[in-house]
Amino acid sequence: MEMTLEVNGMTCGHCEKAVKGALEELEGVHGVEVHLDAGKVDVKYDEAFVTKERMKDAIEDQGYDVVG
Amino acid sequence: MEMTLEVNGMTCGHCEKAVKGALEELEGVHGVEVHLDAGKVDVKYDEAFVTKERMKDAIEDQGYDVVG
Repeated sequence: MEMTLEVNGMTCGHCEKAVKGALEELEGVHGVEVHLDAGKVDVKYDEAFVTKERMKDAIEDQGYDVVG
Repeated sequence: MEMTLEVNGMTCGHCEKAVKGALEELEGVHGVEVHLDAGKVDVKYDEAFVTKERMKDAIEDQGYDVVG
Protein backbone atom coordinates (compact mmCIF):
# COMPACT_ATOMS: atom_id res chain seq x y z
CA MET A 1 0.00 0.00 0.00
CA GLU A 2 1.04 3.58 -0.52
CA MET A 3 -0.33 6.67 1.18
CA THR A 4 0.44 10.38 1.11
CA LEU A 5 0.18 12.21 4.40
CA GLU A 6 -0.10 15.99 4.57
CA VAL A 7 2.17 17.27 7.33
CA ASN A 8 2.33 20.84 8.60
CA GLY A 9 5.32 22.45 10.27
CA MET A 10 8.25 20.79 8.51
CA THR A 11 10.66 23.60 7.73
CA CYS A 12 14.13 22.17 7.26
CA GLY A 13 16.25 19.10 6.69
CA HIS A 14 16.17 18.26 10.38
CA CYS A 15 12.39 18.22 10.33
CA GLU A 16 12.53 15.96 7.32
CA LYS A 17 14.84 13.56 9.15
CA ALA A 18 12.73 13.60 12.31
CA VAL A 19 9.56 12.66 10.42
CA LYS A 20 11.27 10.12 8.18
CA GLY A 21 13.03 8.50 11.14
CA ALA A 22 9.87 8.26 13.24
CA LEU A 23 7.95 6.57 10.43
CA GLU A 24 10.75 4.20 9.49
CA GLU A 25 10.88 2.94 13.06
CA LEU A 26 7.35 1.60 12.78
CA GLU A 27 6.91 -2.05 11.96
CA GLY A 28 5.21 -2.39 8.59
CA VAL A 29 6.65 0.82 7.11
CA HIS A 30 9.09 0.06 4.34
CA GLY A 31 9.54 3.30 2.48
CA VAL A 32 9.27 7.00 3.33
CA GLU A 33 9.77 9.99 1.08
CA VAL A 34 9.42 13.51 2.47
CA HIS A 35 8.57 16.43 0.21
CA LEU A 36 9.48 19.37 2.39
CA ASP A 37 8.26 22.21 0.18
CA ALA A 38 4.94 20.53 -0.48
CA GLY A 39 4.48 19.43 3.13
CA LYS A 40 3.78 15.91 2.00
CA VAL A 41 5.08 12.52 3.02
CA ASP A 42 4.75 9.42 0.85
CA VAL A 43 4.71 6.20 2.84
CA LYS A 44 4.92 2.64 1.60
CA TYR A 45 3.53 0.27 4.19
CA ASP A 46 1.95 -3.04 4.89
CA GLU A 47 -1.59 -2.52 6.18
CA ALA A 48 -1.41 -5.79 8.09
CA PHE A 49 1.16 -4.24 10.43
CA VAL A 50 0.52 -0.52 10.64
CA THR A 51 -2.40 1.90 10.48
CA LYS A 52 -2.66 5.50 9.38
CA GLU A 53 -3.46 6.41 12.99
CA ARG A 54 -0.18 4.86 14.14
CA MET A 55 1.79 6.82 11.55
CA LYS A 56 -0.05 10.00 12.45
CA ASP A 57 0.81 9.53 16.12
CA ALA A 58 4.47 8.95 15.28
CA ILE A 59 4.63 12.20 13.30
CA GLU A 60 2.71 14.18 15.91
CA ASP A 61 5.06 12.90 18.62
CA GLN A 62 7.83 14.71 16.74
CA GLY A 63 5.92 17.96 16.96
CA TYR A 64 4.22 18.17 13.56
CA ASP A 65 0.58 18.26 12.59
CA VAL A 66 -0.96 15.75 10.25
CA VAL A 67 -3.90 17.06 8.25
CA GLY A 68 -6.89 14.72 7.95
CA MET B 1 33.92 37.89 26.15
CA GLU B 2 30.48 37.93 24.63
CA MET B 3 29.57 38.12 20.97
CA THR B 4 26.36 38.06 18.95
CA LEU B 5 26.46 36.21 15.64
CA GLU B 6 23.86 36.77 12.97
CA VAL B 7 22.87 33.39 11.51
CA ASN B 8 20.63 32.84 8.49
CA GLY B 9 18.60 29.73 7.82
CA MET B 10 17.56 28.62 11.29
CA THR B 11 13.89 27.73 11.03
CA CYS B 12 12.98 25.38 13.84
CA GLY B 13 13.93 23.85 17.16
CA HIS B 14 16.14 21.29 15.44
CA CYS B 15 18.12 24.08 13.79
CA GLU B 16 18.48 25.76 17.15
CA LYS B 17 19.83 22.55 18.68
CA ALA B 18 22.21 21.93 15.79
CA VAL B 19 23.77 25.38 16.07
CA LYS B 20 23.85 25.37 19.85
CA GLY B 21 25.38 21.89 19.95
CA ALA B 22 28.06 22.70 17.39
CA LEU B 23 29.16 25.80 19.29
CA GLU B 24 29.09 24.16 22.69
CA GLU B 25 31.46 21.46 21.42
CA LEU B 26 34.16 24.05 20.81
CA GLU B 27 36.81 24.48 23.49
CA GLY B 28 36.54 27.97 24.95
CA VAL B 29 32.79 28.33 24.41
CA HIS B 30 30.96 28.37 27.71
CA GLY B 31 27.53 29.72 26.93
CA VAL B 32 25.25 29.78 23.88
CA GLU B 33 21.82 31.31 23.52
CA VAL B 34 19.94 31.04 20.24
CA HIS B 35 17.24 33.55 19.32
CA LEU B 36 15.48 31.75 16.50
CA ASP B 37 13.08 34.48 15.42
CA ALA B 38 15.77 37.13 15.38
CA GLY B 39 18.32 34.86 13.70
CA LYS B 40 20.86 35.72 16.36
CA VAL B 41 23.15 33.67 18.56
CA ASP B 42 24.76 35.03 21.71
CA VAL B 43 28.00 33.30 22.60
CA LYS B 44 30.06 33.57 25.75
CA TYR B 45 33.61 32.50 25.09
CA ASP B 46 37.21 32.75 26.09
CA GLU B 47 39.17 34.48 23.33
CA ALA B 48 42.32 32.64 24.40
CA PHE B 49 40.80 29.39 23.17
CA VAL B 50 38.43 30.15 20.34
CA THR B 51 38.05 32.66 17.50
CA LYS B 52 35.02 34.05 15.72
CA GLU B 53 36.25 32.26 12.58
CA ARG B 54 36.19 28.93 14.39
CA MET B 55 32.63 29.52 15.60
CA LYS B 56 31.56 30.62 12.14
CA ASP B 57 32.99 27.42 10.63
CA ALA B 58 31.18 25.29 13.21
CA ILE B 59 27.85 26.92 12.36
CA GLU B 60 28.44 26.74 8.62
CA ASP B 61 29.31 23.06 8.89
CA GLN B 62 25.74 22.56 10.13
CA GLY B 63 24.40 24.20 6.97
CA TYR B 64 23.71 27.75 8.11
CA ASP B 65 25.13 31.06 6.96
CA VAL B 66 26.83 33.47 9.30
CA VAL B 67 26.55 37.12 8.30
CA GLY B 68 29.73 39.18 8.63
